[in-house]
Amino acid sequence: MSNDAPGATRALVNRVRGIRYEEIPDEAREVARHCLLDFLGCALAGSDDPLTDILVAQVAAGEGGSQAGLIGRPERATLQTAALINGAAGHALDFDDTHTAMGHPSVPVIPALLALAESRDADGRSVLDALVAGIEMECRLGLLCGQEHYAAGFHSTATYGTFGAAAACAHLLDLDENAWLNAMGLAGTQAAGLKSAFGTMTKPFHAGRAASAGLLSAQLAEGGFTAQSAILEVEQGFAATHACKDPSAAALEAQPDPLLIRDTLFKYHAACYLTHAAIEAAKLLRGQHGVAPDDVERVDVEVHPMLLGVCNIQEPATGLEGKFSLRATTALSFLDRDTGDPALFRDATMAEPEVVALRDRITVSSTTEVTPTQARLTVLTPGGSVQELVDAGTPAKDLADQGRRIVDKFRTLATARLGNERADALAAAVHGIDEPGALADVLRLACGTPGRA
Amino acid sequence: MSNDAPGATRALVNRVRGIRYEEIPDEAREVARHCLLDFLGCALAGSDDPLTDILVAQVAAGEGGSQAGLIGRPERATLQTAALINGAAGHALDFDDTHTAMGHPSVPVIPALLALAESRDADGRSVLDALVAGIEMECRLGLLCGQEHYAAGFHSTATYGTFGAAAACAHLLDLDENAWLNAMGLAGTQAAGLKSAFGTMTKPFHAGRAASAGLLSAQLAEGGFTAQSAILEVEQGFAATHACKDPSAAALEAQPDPLLIRDTLFKYHAACYLTHAAIEAAKLLRGQHGVAPDDVERVDVEVHPMLLGVCNIQEPATGLEGKFSLRATTALSFLDRDTGDPALFRDATMAEPEVVALRDRITVSSTTEVTPTQARLTVLTPGGSVQELVDAGTPAKDLADQGRRIVDKFRTLATARLGNERADALAAAVHGIDEPGALADVLRLACGTPGRA
Repeated sequence: MSNDAPGATRALVNRVRGIRYEEIPDEAREVARHCLLDFLGCALAGSDDPLTDILVAQVAAGEGGSQAGLIGRPERATLQTAALINGAAGHALDFDDTHTAMGHPSVPVIPALLALAESRDADGRSVLDALVAGIEMECRLGLLCGQEHYAAGFHSTATYGTFGAAAACAHLLDLDENAWLNAMGLAGTQAAGLKSAFGTMTKPFHAGRAASAGLLSAQLAEGGFTAQSAILEVEQGFAATHACKDPSAAALEAQPDPLLIRDTLFKYHAACYLTHAAIEAAKLLRGQHGVAPDDVERVDVEVHPMLLGVCNIQEPATGLEGKFSLRATTALSFLDRDTGDPALFRDATMAEPEVVALRDRITVSSTTEVTPTQARLTVLTPGGSVQELVDAGTPAKDLADQGRRIVDKFRTLATARLGNERADALAAAVHGIDEPGALADVLRLACGTPGRA
Repeated sequence: MSNDAPGATRALVNRVRGIRYEEIPDEAREVARHCLLDFLGCALAGSDDPLTDILVAQVAAGEGGSQAGLIGRPERATLQTAALINGAAGHALDFDDTHTAMGHPSVPVIPALLALAESRDADGRSVLDALVAGIEMECRLGLLCGQEHYAAGFHSTATYGTFGAAAACAHLLDLDENAWLNAMGLAGTQAAGLKSAFGTMTKPFHAGRAASAGLLSAQLAEGGFTAQSAILEVEQGFAATHACKDPSAAALEAQPDPLLIRDTLFKYHAACYLTHAAIEAAKLLRGQHGVAPDDVERVDVEVHPMLLGVCNIQEPATGLEGKFSLRATTALSFLDRDTGDPALFRDATMAEPEVVALRDRITVSSTTEVTPTQARLTVLTPGGSVQELVDAGTPAKDLADQGRRIVDKFRTLATARLGNERADALAAAVHGIDEPGALADVLRLACGTPGRA
């Protein structure tokens, strides 16, 4: 290979390594704050999940590490273990942010970054830079490598996420180009995680594993560890062995410029992402068209055919089944229930007569006129029919509104663990993360003995 | 899938889980002791390698863990980090044992096992059982999955080794069948490591990473963590995503019975494995046929064509090049140099007039009449010609002789780090590993402040 034309790995590193606070548009920085707050809410809500308890008992307890805090818990841990556990907790509810380029962007990156930042006494601005850089790396990589990787069975949040976590940490450590390349080499040779583990505790584990492996990659590269420096494109490298398109610097060059963190999508409903458009459409019909549940004679939900095999359980018996039922989630939305509260999705809710009665007046059908993230709802009422089409797959235009919704969601998730006052203080600290001392506040409020409400 | 016929994962677990001391043939137990001693020698020799220093400085030092010892070093570490570092150190010289079924069998397994055993105060017998079981798992898996996995770019020592380490630890923890399956699921979703990293510090890192990931899998499964329980054969499972043959219980059934640890091969020369047959043949010609270096007019080395691209550097200038030079290694063997000492392979050796002069009387040619692990040497002397054919790829028939050779190798590797007395005491403790208290002696002598000679 000619030394003149950098390969894909070097080109990606060059693109991401130079991201600096001054050059990040305000919008992207604002979304980074949203990512951080949203991640913290999810990790707080997952901090007493059984899988988190097992990780703490089986790994952290014996290690007795004290380098970094665990979110929503009194224990501390080594950097590696904090990244692992906070990542797994953050993905336990599958309620964290998403990105069409790669999967779940924040959950592999932020846990690695927070652990490293705490141990290096970094400031909030550097962490915001590094978060933007980490998400840029994993999303550019996702675009370069294509959908076939995920389709073939790899859990891209885990695999691309390992690169994202490594890049974020390399950025925080301000590594030179050579060390960056080694960090990518170490990330690529550790990147793993199979979709066939979905439905078990191992799915959230993947996020934590990506965080800890990415962090380890940057830590070792900082110390001079050597690795394959063209891991993406080298013969039998990451791309060739992991069902990726052949990645090239030219393809990267052709990608649009704006920082990809801007396209992060947030989940406001504690159900399968593919039910969100229908939930939002029902909300609009109720709010803007004044359709009351009793007026509903029938609802037709039209979705992309792909959804029928994912989230179309007709008569969900459990809360978990309810998360994968377009009929149930749409009914709950018409009933003005708080679909943003994971506690809504319990078995009892699915058996409530009012929920069942409305659910049974809803039919789901498929059409290729909509995309997988869209839903078209037609409601038949005594006064006629109204229709709404919603797309849950486009980034918010109004960031202020997005910010408000994320704070609301955060409160719902965090209050049970932290109490009102501390949850509000944490949201405020994240909002002011660029200020001196704010990162320490974030860590102090998010980690340590929680004051349960 | 029918519940009556277990899938490949369950069949493998059933086969390996039941291995118990009473049923292990003496020969297999003896080889397990050889594996342990050989691993310890290699890890001691690698314990001050630059890559080990980086791992300790960048990871262990900050963690301040004290659960388990580091071989040949004063520091202690968490279980996870001890497994990582001892595994990387053990593979730093690429001098550890090999197995045609999977790669390097001991180096992913033993570091996981020693760390876990130390923290659980296990006895030597249980560790020996678990070592046999771990090697059985990774080697059976290697046979099931075939050569294509390695050919496609996966470093099988890392990938299969993760399963091996998980199985060894699951065995030591005496997990039930369900937890074993979860441990395999966690191992399979973490199994990673690319051959394209060869030539960097990342190759030895892979061994350590396999050890720590396998250990983590068993630790979490013990605590009730859930995972994909048919990770090998499930749709988009490990086999389908990692270029493996479709693994089946029937194929496992058809494999020959004896424990596969018996076929472990040991390296006695600190050079590329594919030079070993020629080195051994030269040794025989010198020893049994009395061929003195001065008598050698010409040597014809015949090897399999595959070797010409691997270890046929004609005029090696550096010690490292010498390890990949059939001419140089064969010359050193005729000169009765200690090819088992890594220190022999330094630049100065390759420039010695006597080495260069003999090397230049050696020619290498290829023939498909021999296998890649064989070499045929023909020596022309004033008195005529003699010939020897040696195969370095067949397990030793005489285990007592193998044991003596491994002790010799161990002394060469360990003495610099431990001194004569402590090295001998460690070899004796490994020999008596089945006795009560012997494991604690092994750990005490192998780890902790070394008394450098």
